[in-house]
Amino acid sequence: MVFSETSPVFNSRFDEAERAEIIATAEAAADAAREITLKYFRGSELDTASKLSEGFDPVTVADRGSEQAMRAVIAARRPHDAILGEEFPSKPGTSGLTWVLDPIDGTRGFISGTPTWGVLIALRDAQSALYGVIDQPYIGERFSGGLGRAELDGPHGTRKLAVRQGVPLDQAVIFSTFPEVGGESEGKAFHDLAGRCKLTRYGMDCYAYALLAAGQIDLVVEAGLQSYDILAPIAVIEAAGGIVTDWQGGPVLEGGRVLAAASKELHDAALAVLSDY
Amino acid sequence: MVFSETSPVFNSRFDEAERAEIIATAEAAADAAREITLKYFRGSELDTASKLSEGFDPVTVADRGSEQAMRAVIAARRPHDAILGEEFPSKPGTSGLTWVLDPIDGTRGFISGTPTWGVLIALRDAQSALYGVIDQPYIGERFSGGLGRAELDGPHGTRKLAVRQGVPLDQAVIFSTFPEVGGESEGKAFHDLAGRCKLTRYGMDCYAYALLAAGQIDLVVEAGLQSYDILAPIAVIEAAGGIVTDWQGGPVLEGGRVLAAASKELHDAALAVLSDY
Repeated sequence: MVFSETSPVFNSRFDEAERAEIIATAEAAADAAREITLKYFRGSELDTASKLSEGFDPVTVADRGSEQAMRAVIAARRPHDAILGEEFPSKPGTSGLTWVLDPIDGTRGFISGTPTWGVLIALRDAQSALYGVIDQPYIGERFSGGLGRAELDGPHGTRKLAVRQGVPLDQAVIFSTFPEVGGESEGKAFHDLAGRCKLTRYGMDCYAYALLAAGQIDLVVEAGLQSYDILAPIAVIEAAGGIVTDWQGGPVLEGGRVLAAASKELHDAALAVLSDY
Repeated sequence: MVFSETSPVFNSRFDEAERAEIIATAEAAADAAREITLKYFRGSELDTASKLSEGFDPVTVADRGSEQAMRAVIAARRPHDAILGEEFPSKPGTSGLTWVLDPIDGTRGFISGTPTWGVLIALRDAQSALYGVIDQPYIGERFSGGLGRAELDGPHGTRKLAVRQGVPLDQAVIFSTFPEVGGESEGKAFHDLAGRCKLTRYGMDCYAYALLAAGQIDLVVEAGLQSYDILAPIAVIEAAGGIVTDWQGGPVLEGGRVLAAASKELHDAALAVLSDY
């Protein structure tokens, strides 16, 4: 792997050895999560366990198992980093760096068998998302971004991630997970914006952010997100040249209302609509 | 492959050799379509071609190329069968059998880079869908059903397709491609039914029918479908034990309003709502 010192996402606080170690840790965590989640996704173990125990929730078991496996990998390799995950109490650290984990983003997709849920892994400091992974275990696709890297490794090989540029709003493809985005006024804002785009699609969870980073779509708009839902997408999309903010153009590291755009022009055009709500 | 003479989808008009030949033809056609569609899906050829020619439409090129490749395979192997496809004039036949092809079902998903579009291949006679394939080339998943067969071949191996039973309406997972199902009253009917289910998801095109056959979801409701959109799903779902009809419970081989259900109980419950519209 070659790190570009001129990359906009290059972070000078890390030397090359530490960058490589961070990336290797994220990869190992994603590998561990893949193994657990695939055991339960569409799986026969899921059916068996459901029958054995009344009230058994396969998503909860997969979610918790996946996060535990990632926590074990990270704690062993980088004991001084903090860990924040969806399912367990935060683990404090002393490095100023925090791993932020969503073991299954898109649980409704997961229980429905769709291949568009994901495992989200991010490393952040106080100011920014430094590195992120959006992993889709069933397809075997891993979108990684930050520390000079922006790439997709999948069943058809490895390619560089780059957003597409030069698409005007009336030609844009916009995604959201549900037609009912957030509350009533948030939904109105989304549909106001979507009505100005060429094509609106639903149902992809974190996979929509991955498609934006891959240059396939132009806008993702969501509301009511948690920090662990959005940090990995921020890192991947920024590494691919895109922009992720809240609906006022401010940072969205802590979650809330999210606007992800492939270009500055589209980000401006979308903000002009959303910021009125 | 073992054919069960007691299977409900066993069709006594074919001997084992012809059943095997029909299945092999469908497989070869699906393989040919995979090669063409993957050349254009998220592909660099797509970008290059777009730049070279103003007005170049990659979906149209992939669509037509995929159908041509399938037609060539079928015409060579089974010259007496008719062929009906989305993109080219019908080819007449003398066998009483027609291959019905949708080279890319879910073009909006295709252009957006989502992995849930599909290639649809069906063999029908006047009365029924005899055999069907729902193929997802990017994931490498193939759902096949009919002539005693009901199976998924994918990146994690081969498994039998079987719908799930015993899920009441208020626990059901329902899918449709768009929140705006058909016209206004059709949309109202869908949302009336969806409001009685546990979970509603959108955006999967033909992949939703595949998930129903795989026992992952319970209902799919759509309107305005063409024959080539629904014949392969009918064959696959019926082979897996499910039911596909129109909104009055009649046959839906020619397209229109579609209700696919995992069980007779759910089909009855859904019909009770939809048939009022």
